Amino acid sequence: MKIYDVENFPNPLRVRIALAEKNATANVEFVPVDLLNGEHRTEAFLAKNPLAGVPVLELDDGTFISESTAITEYIDTAFEGPSLMGETAKERAVINMMQKRAESMVLDAVATYFHHATDGLGPELETYQNVAWGEKQGEKARQGFSYFNDVLAQSAFVAGEQFSIADITLYAGLVFAGFAQIAIPNELTHLVAWQEKVAKRPSVAA
Amino acid sequence: MKIYDVENFPNPLRVRIALAEKNATANVEFVPVDLLNGEHRTEAFLAKNPLAGVPVLELDDGTFISESTAITEYIDTAFEGPSLMGETAKERAVINMMQKRAESMVLDAVATYFHHATDGLGPELETYQNVAWGEKQGEKARQGFSYFNDVLAQSAFVAGEQFSIADITLYAGLVFAGFAQIAIPNELTHLVAWQEKVAKRPSVAA
Repeated sequence: MKIYDVENFPNPLRVRIALAEKNATANVEFVPVDLLNGEHRTEAFLAKNPLAGVPVLELDDGTFISESTAITEYIDTAFEGPSLMGETAKERAVINMMQKRAESMVLDAVATYFHHATDGLGPELETYQNVAWGEKQGEKARQGFSYFNDVLAQSAFVAGEQFSIADITLYAGLVFAGFAQIAIPNELTHLVAWQEKVAKRPSVAA
Repeated sequence: MKIYDVENFPNPLRVRIALAEKNATANVEFVPVDLLNGEHRTEAFLAKNPLAGVPVLELDDGTFISESTAITEYIDTAFEGPSLMGETAKERAVINMMQKRAESMVLDAVATYFHHATDGLGPELETYQNVAWGEKQGEKARQGFSYFNDVLAQSAFVAGEQFSIADITLYAGLVFAGFAQIAIPNELTHLVAWQEKVAKRPSVAA
């Protein structure tokens, strides 16, 4: 299988960590997308993902899967190893919920701040910006940091005592926040300690 | 188990259809939330869902699950009957992807239009509005209708030949669009025919 992506971008990072957690990275051929020069908006790329985002997974039968959660669903189901999305109905529901919160409260909020309230990827790519909405989402991200600090005061990982896709999403959100220069306050000690712990996992540090 | 919700609201509708598809509605006690009078912003409700949204599922052990996809994950895993989220890795990934597209391109876009570019739930509840962003999302929803019309020209349902959570999300999005007065153009014949077909399913018509 192939993954079309941009190394070090936040959503590609999510999928690469998931692959590494399942020891499945060697099964994938990575194909770089020249996003900064607009390759994601060419007809050839839109045929793979009409929403023009990376990463995109191509299965050996030619099926294209986009959306990071969908690609992780594939990886988690197709490969052996500890589940990233839970086993029982309750585990799966809690992980799904916390993953979604990490997306809406942090990762997506940071992305909207970056694309709307900063220069983002530059004037050629940021063709519509709404600064007030971007600032509002930056504020939401900072509230999200505080929420997850409280969560991580209670449990070792975002969705309980096991590492899961919810941790991957929050971690990518914090990496993106760093890039977008939204500071994580030092007083959020549980969040900062969790970030340091996740950064040392072999799937992340490698 | 209990579900805290507001009957006929779009996200509660998603979960109620999922329950009915699994013949599991009788297992649930529904608890109405007086959202129009702000009950979702009380401390008692925020303890159930810090994001203040409905529906919320309460399991018999006291665990609270919010986010419609997470609640549906629980329902789909816990109850017998045809899977709403797929069985194989590929099925699960395609359904996850198409569900997410139905959310971001239609349901969430319509919701943002409603809450930002119209009076929404009224001045007491709509305490921050960004009209330009709301209008932009209304435009996105209309593009989403067109995208799904093309999808439904190719397959019986949103994620292939089987009814799935992706259909539930899109259907709730179209119901919300009707309420928010975003018209679905008659020339989108595949989308309109699909909507009529889904409306007749016992899980929806009941």
